[in-house]
Amino acid sequence: MTNKNLEKVAGNGLLNRRHLLGMGLGGAGMAVANTVLGADSGPLQIPYWSRQPGPGASPFGDRSRYAPQLERMSGSPNPTYPGGGASRSPLQHLQGTITPNALHFERHHAGIPDIDPAQHKLVINGLVRQPLVFSYEDLLRYTMVSRIYFLECSGNSGAVLRRDTPDPNGTAQSLHGLVSCAEWTGIPLSTLLDEAGVLPEANWIAAVGADAASMGRSVPLAKAMDDSMLALFQNGEPVMPGQGYPMRLFNPGWEGNTSVKWLTQIKLTNGPVHFRDETSKYTDTLPDRSSLQFTFPMGVKSLITSPSGQMSLNQRGIYRVTGLAWSGSGSIRRVEVSADGGRSWADALIDSERHEKALTRFSIPWEWNGGSAILQSRATDSAGNVQPTRQSILDERGNIATYHFHGIQSWSVNNAGEVRDAHA
Amino acid sequence: MTNKNLEKVAGNGLLNRRHLLGMGLGGAGMAVANTVLGADSGPLQIPYWSRQPGPGASPFGDRSRYAPQLERMSGSPNPTYPGGGASRSPLQHLQGTITPNALHFERHHAGIPDIDPAQHKLVINGLVRQPLVFSYEDLLRYTMVSRIYFLECSGNSGAVLRRDTPDPNGTAQSLHGLVSCAEWTGIPLSTLLDEAGVLPEANWIAAVGADAASMGRSVPLAKAMDDSMLALFQNGEPVMPGQGYPMRLFNPGWEGNTSVKWLTQIKLTNGPVHFRDETSKYTDTLPDRSSLQFTFPMGVKSLITSPSGQMSLNQRGIYRVTGLAWSGSGSIRRVEVSADGGRSWADALIDSERHEKALTRFSIPWEWNGGSAILQSRATDSAGNVQPTRQSILDERGNIATYHFHGIQSWSVNNAGEVRDAHA
Repeated sequence: MTNKNLEKVAGNGLLNRRHLLGMGLGGAGMAVANTVLGADSGPLQIPYWSRQPGPGASPFGDRSRYAPQLERMSGSPNPTYPGGGASRSPLQHLQGTITPNALHFERHHAGIPDIDPAQHKLVINGLVRQPLVFSYEDLLRYTMVSRIYFLECSGNSGAVLRRDTPDPNGTAQSLHGLVSCAEWTGIPLSTLLDEAGVLPEANWIAAVGADAASMGRSVPLAKAMDDSMLALFQNGEPVMPGQGYPMRLFNPGWEGNTSVKWLTQIKLTNGPVHFRDETSKYTDTLPDRSSLQFTFPMGVKSLITSPSGQMSLNQRGIYRVTGLAWSGSGSIRRVEVSADGGRSWADALIDSERHEKALTRFSIPWEWNGGSAILQSRATDSAGNVQPTRQSILDERGNIATYHFHGIQSWSVNNAGEVRDAHA
Repeated sequence: MTNKNLEKVAGNGLLNRRHLLGMGLGGAGMAVANTVLGADSGPLQIPYWSRQPGPGASPFGDRSRYAPQLERMSGSPNPTYPGGGASRSPLQHLQGTITPNALHFERHHAGIPDIDPAQHKLVINGLVRQPLVFSYEDLLRYTMVSRIYFLECSGNSGAVLRRDTPDPNGTAQSLHGLVSCAEWTGIPLSTLLDEAGVLPEANWIAAVGADAASMGRSVPLAKAMDDSMLALFQNGEPVMPGQGYPMRLFNPGWEGNTSVKWLTQIKLTNGPVHFRDETSKYTDTLPDRSSLQFTFPMGVKSLITSPSGQMSLNQRGIYRVTGLAWSGSGSIRRVEVSADGGRSWADALIDSERHEKALTRFSIPWEWNGGSAILQSRATDSAGNVQPTRQSILDERGNIATYHFHGIQSWSVNNAGEVRDAHA
């Protein structure tokens, strides 16, 4: 049942990327005669929306009522953990790499504080020559940088490692939606630390948020002086309340919880502080019951967002397999895709810019012949790191801790075209 | 009254960019004693929002009630031109380069059609081997590319050329807000044209929208086969209704009206069609009453967004002068800033990525000494084009036509610190 004119590049239907690029594929367009185009009943008949003017320009744009009403998936409130929880980005419905601000994932430890920026203060103290206090207005006077960065919760995709059996109901959003990407604008943290004057014995910073959890994380000074920023804007606008308004720490490429939201204090220290949030959680316990602490960078990772869990292929034919790749250690050099559970691989197209520490879009054409398939993607970053298999992570780390799971994700397709989370 | 320790790089207070980068500037932070930080009345006293948990994660994020409620500025409706008009992006309040979808500028000729994508068709016909009709679902199967591009209305900033006297009430938004920037995702137009099979005698395309104005523009085939796309997504989401939902043509770097929204037909032609919208408007009439037609690429341009019209400097001292630069002919190589009306210039910092045909953020520190100043910026693109003065455009083209004004913009600062639109 497969089309013999298509050039295969790997097993089970993966096609040369020049297909779908106008070089030989029959395509999805319906052929019509020119005479039909002029007929009243033809495809160029004038629809009602072309017959009368619509509403004009407005102060604030809204989505089409016909477009999918994209939403984050947020967990049910837990009465013993007020304000705790997360919401996940609808990855399977988004294209490109930028996440709109309203759809950026969240993870809160005590909900969202309602901060008046005129009353908010940022203190830099500890092992500095001169402790400093900054108002929001003060900070707006500094030179800022703008960079496109992903942010990922270290717990993202953890359910894939924890479970012994696949979850038939998992979607890209429910399993992997704790990752998003935005253009962040802020002040290089080094600027503010230099102004306070870091003393020689300082080698870490302790960052504390103004939420009711006093969320705190220790960050090595080397990172803080490298590319960390005090982020004030997100995709052009002031950062959203759920992202730390009026300001957050942002540590590019590192586990999301270190990018402390609602930042109110940076204390220069000798050694880490061992906050509650870096002992009670955010450590990785190994099979021998020892724990890794301060495992900051997010590993090289990729995910097929379409086809993905809960989708159905409704007919045999050519599909665009597409997804996202990212790495906390650089840019994405390569993404490979397999349709036969990892037995054979083909290079995917990179469809977006390849920014450092940012989501990168990939795709490859695939012909589904009506049989079963296991779709996987495997990313390689600019540092040469290759995304590992789920099994290799289990072999190495076990599954007591489920943070930092960046293994290859598998989606199975059955004969009916149903797509489900799978372990392969 | 000026600080003698600051290194000047051009007249009237422009400072070396290492100031504000933590290398010598006293800075804006308030020095405090460590003992004060522990006192109940000190800056680290616990505000009310840190004393109780806030609301948890939600399906759709909203802006802080304390943040500026950014809006587009939309003109008053004209009863003889239903649905006509524009809305302008709040450039003076945005940072970075990405414009959130709700704030992307609009320009409509007959308002926004309420299109059901399930009923919308895209026809490719004319000088092709095989006319084709595409549904929205068909198009989602194609490989897409994602690129960050500016879009600018050819009429943007035209008022600056037209008026003989400065407008004391003009803002960056009201004068220049018909430019925005987004990550656009779509199908390379060449893919679809190749599928229809372009005949040798075709050298233009005629693109028509499904709005009640049947907005149409002719585009040379060379551009269509180069980097034009059929855009389906904007910053990750389906394109907004005001941007052409479910699909628009997108011609990177070219005047906005050629990127026909609500695209329903592409006809391959020999020569341009001379639509109403490329004869009655969007031509540039010269002093001798001849008109330039099909002046597509937007010129290299920059704009200081802060300080800008209607702002006030409330005290002497160091300010961050920042703005945007862009070019329809490539990326931004250099931006210079002057504080003395163009007598002396200093290189600004480039604070963002430098994408092709995209907004680029620049800044430079400036010490306002309480006197008068004229702030200007001048961009140079990767093709070597330098942004011209307003006067040189007047000398060359006159001001009958005000499209494609990309001259240097001047903001005056008076002794009271008031910032106004000016011609210098």
